[in-house]
Amino acid sequence: MTAPYEPPYEPIAWVDRCVRLLDQTLLPHEVRYIDLPTVEAVAEAIEVMRVRGAPAIGITAAYGLALAACLAAPGADGSVLRAVEDAAVRLGATRPTAVNLRWALDRVTARVREATGDASAVAAAIEEAQRIHEEQRRADEAMAGAGANLLAPGSTVLTHCNTGALATGGLGTALGVIIEGYRRGLVRHVLVDETRPRLQGARLTAWELAQHGVPHEVIADGAAASLMAGGEVAAVIVGADRIAANGDTANKVGTYGAAIAARYHSVPFYVAAPLSTVDPATPSGGAIPIEERDASEVLAVDGHPVAPEGTRARNPAFDVTPAALIDGIVTERGVLRPPFATSIASALAEALAGAVPGTAGG
Amino acid sequence: MTAPYEPPYEPIAWVDRCVRLLDQTLLPHEVRYIDLPTVEAVAEAIEVMRVRGAPAIGITAAYGLALAACLAAPGADGSVLRAVEDAAVRLGATRPTAVNLRWALDRVTARVREATGDASAVAAAIEEAQRIHEEQRRADEAMAGAGANLLAPGSTVLTHCNTGALATGGLGTALGVIIEGYRRGLVRHVLVDETRPRLQGARLTAWELAQHGVPHEVIADGAAASLMAGGEVAAVIVGADRIAANGDTANKVGTYGAAIAARYHSVPFYVAAPLSTVDPATPSGGAIPIEERDASEVLAVDGHPVAPEGTRARNPAFDVTPAALIDGIVTERGVLRPPFATSIASALAEALAGAVPGTAGG
Repeated sequence: MTAPYEPPYEPIAWVDRCVRLLDQTLLPHEVRYIDLPTVEAVAEAIEVMRVRGAPAIGITAAYGLALAACLAAPGADGSVLRAVEDAAVRLGATRPTAVNLRWALDRVTARVREATGDASAVAAAIEEAQRIHEEQRRADEAMAGAGANLLAPGSTVLTHCNTGALATGGLGTALGVIIEGYRRGLVRHVLVDETRPRLQGARLTAWELAQHGVPHEVIADGAAASLMAGGEVAAVIVGADRIAANGDTANKVGTYGAAIAARYHSVPFYVAAPLSTVDPATPSGGAIPIEERDASEVLAVDGHPVAPEGTRARNPAFDVTPAALIDGIVTERGVLRPPFATSIASALAEALAGAVPGTAGG
Repeated sequence: MTAPYEPPYEPIAWVDRCVRLLDQTLLPHEVRYIDLPTVEAVAEAIEVMRVRGAPAIGITAAYGLALAACLAAPGADGSVLRAVEDAAVRLGATRPTAVNLRWALDRVTARVREATGDASAVAAAIEEAQRIHEEQRRADEAMAGAGANLLAPGSTVLTHCNTGALATGGLGTALGVIIEGYRRGLVRHVLVDETRPRLQGARLTAWELAQHGVPHEVIADGAAASLMAGGEVAAVIVGADRIAANGDTANKVGTYGAAIAARYHSVPFYVAAPLSTVDPATPSGGAIPIEERDASEVLAVDGHPVAPEGTRARNPAFDVTPAALIDGIVTERGVLRPPFATSIASALAEALAGAVPGTAGG
């Protein structure tokens, strides 16, 4: 990183013993911060996706436990732990499949359990939630720095979906790389896949790039190949939802097609994701289940139907890009290169051997 | 063709000396036929795209001249020709770049000019417009028959944009092949790219397939590659806006990415288009200008903005699929195969040598 850099907006914050969120359901049309004064309000915010993105959900839930600790009846020894445990049950049920959520709740609860006395338990809950948030910030910064090195000056980069501060609570993964690249004069322009069906690119990524002052244009997902053919794309950078042990990468649907087109045009294709995204128990992409979401996401936009009534749709939420199409995986421990089975295993072993500055582990 | 087959709806018809159109601006939410009693009404319908698709526009304009002839003051010798010539000016200005429009207007006007007396001129105008329509129907049938032969029984085919009766006034080009394939038991299921930004797939193709009773599902354009990877797509069939002499094909944006993905998965990729789509004066795809349409098509859906205010967008309307990615071009004279420079030149020479049943020439 050229210098520590904070986004000019704060999607998640711990302010005056409240959880403050930038309400993503209102973006891009309205920028509204909401203060959540109760655990129930935090749970509802996660459920209705006022906050989304696996790391951002984990941080929000951790702050939710800090809030539970603060709200517990003071003095009655053990009441803070009970409040935190109750809150962890409620918050853990909001998005049951989110791995980061479970992990963040367990970390905070464990710290509270170790604390002696309620005052100390409250302090421990707040401290651990803030530490989880800070670790994500540092991991994002490390990825941004490592990934920006991949880009030649004046590059136009293409990205898919949303991978910014809104998704991580830090600088972002792929979008963090792009923003850091812009600050270093390496990224000149960003082409943003609108990312059907949920339009996270048009709604969220365009909004984030505007906040950072990074020049960008939104495109229909189907226009990417044509722009590559015109020589307009220097690199493609995307995030990841899950990375298999061999480097096969599950990400928002549409990523795979962009990767195929990138290879066809000899455009480098990079994935940016913290090592926590790697699932060593998943040997390859074939073992990653692909969630099929509701057809209504395809058949309507903002509640406005675009297809005949009664039409059916397929709506796979993710696709799997095989490792063979990926030129590098940007992590908080630097850029991993093929063969990924080897480079991923080494990076995971190093991370396990001991925490170093800039890692997300814990 | 197994038997002459008509769509169960009629996008363009000449009824009671009126031009009757299925208003495509209201689809898929409302099926409304409108009778256009004046040349001005026909011109307006073309301008605001109540009818779209190059062949459909040409047929509509031809009927517009027949209407002008009918409405001319009877008896006053020469008044029919003058009315037709005036109408041709008005109708020719509606979509100045549409080649079929110009060609259809010229054909009808020439027939009227040759006629002796006003009564004969009126009959000639109606007859020529109906002939243009009938030739399109026969060309579409010939394509459907030739293209269906390419498909194995039980195929799931993927298509992009709208290439049905709504676009040609006949059975359609690529969609005609698919419908005929379904009637023969070769097509089991159709995956319909929604085709952002204008969503012709979701709006129009899904509607047409439903009318024909062909099982289908709409997908986000970005989901196509993933479904190919899953082995779900037996063939891709699309239409064409312009085909260069070497076979490079301009079509709705998103076609090119689908073609790259098809090749990556060894899925055959076919183009269906009448020979009139070939422009022998265009040596290759590089010479085809790509229209950039208004950014608002990307930034809003049905008038509802999906990106932050002030966001910029790129909106290339078409892309060019190189001949190397195309496995066959289905025409009214059969399926052309690589090398296309040779097969296209032969087909054009044959077509010039003499009309045969099922050709679109004239």
